[in-house]
Amino acid sequence: MAKLYFEDFKPGHTAEYGPRLVTREEIIAFSVQYDPQPMHLDEAAAQKSLLGGLGASGWHGCGIMMRMICDGFLLDSTSMGAGGVEEVQWQRPIRPGDRLTLRVTILEARASKSRPDMGIVRFRYEMFNAHGEGVMTMVTPAMFGRRDPGAQE
Amino acid sequence: MAKLYFEDFKPGHTAEYGPRLVTREEIIAFSVQYDPQPMHLDEAAAQKSLLGGLGASGWHGCGIMMRMICDGFLLDSTSMGAGGVEEVQWQRPIRPGDRLTLRVTILEARASKSRPDMGIVRFRYEMFNAHGEGVMTMVTPAMFGRRDPGAQE
Repeated sequence: MAKLYFEDFKPGHTAEYGPRLVTREEIIAFSVQYDPQPMHLDEAAAQKSLLGGLGASGWHGCGIMMRMICDGFLLDSTSMGAGGVEEVQWQRPIRPGDRLTLRVTILEARASKSRPDMGIVRFRYEMFNAHGEGVMTMVTPAMFGRRDPGAQE
Repeated sequence: MAKLYFEDFKPGHTAEYGPRLVTREEIIAFSVQYDPQPMHLDEAAAQKSLLGGLGASGWHGCGIMMRMICDGFLLDSTSMGAGGVEEVQWQRPIRPGDRLTLRVTILEARASKSRPDMGIVRFRYEMFNAHGEGVMTMVTPAMFGRRDPGAQE
């Protein structure tokens, strides 16, 4: 399998990955450990909350999205990590039984000024449920190794 | 214990929580499930990465921060959830054995225009290791129930 380098990420390109099933068990397991608010643990409490029924922690959504990114392309790339996230929006609850798909859009790709062996790719990620409704979005820059260190863009 | 309402969050106020020990086992357990990049799983691979040694997934850092927020004050509040995150910065690796502390600063508090029973509080969160080095920051708005729905600020 060809490994993806910085040069392979072309602004404007999109890709789709999934579906990924989300279970009630994993929603609760994540919430118990990292976000034990009643609306993420208990159906009755969740019914009375803005979620209107059991929904995953937003951070669990981020974890699921990250795993889909890893399986989708990141583990076959020269990924060097990321320094942060520009924005996360939790649009709709992620429910038990949801089958999520991920759409990746490459917003921008630029060589690093300080490191000739590195480039920065800005991505927009959008996650959808099986009804095609957006459940979350994220914009984030990530660092990748270059095939041709120091070459002009 | 007095439950925290929107009116109890005063801009400029700060609080500190922790410490929270992070173990190698939980770093690897999280990474296996949500971010299986070699630098989050394997010491030798991590040594060769920008992390310079095994470090937690940034998303694990977010989960740990969320749990510290829950235990610190959110579970004793009228929290109604959050619609997203404005910004996350991963400043330094979170290492096995780190004892993390969390500083919370209230940036802003404003009544909801559409829901008189709700207010929005914007927080800045900063997490530090035992050396006092910043490991991550986050800015996020969260929704809380009001003690006096519809009262003037």
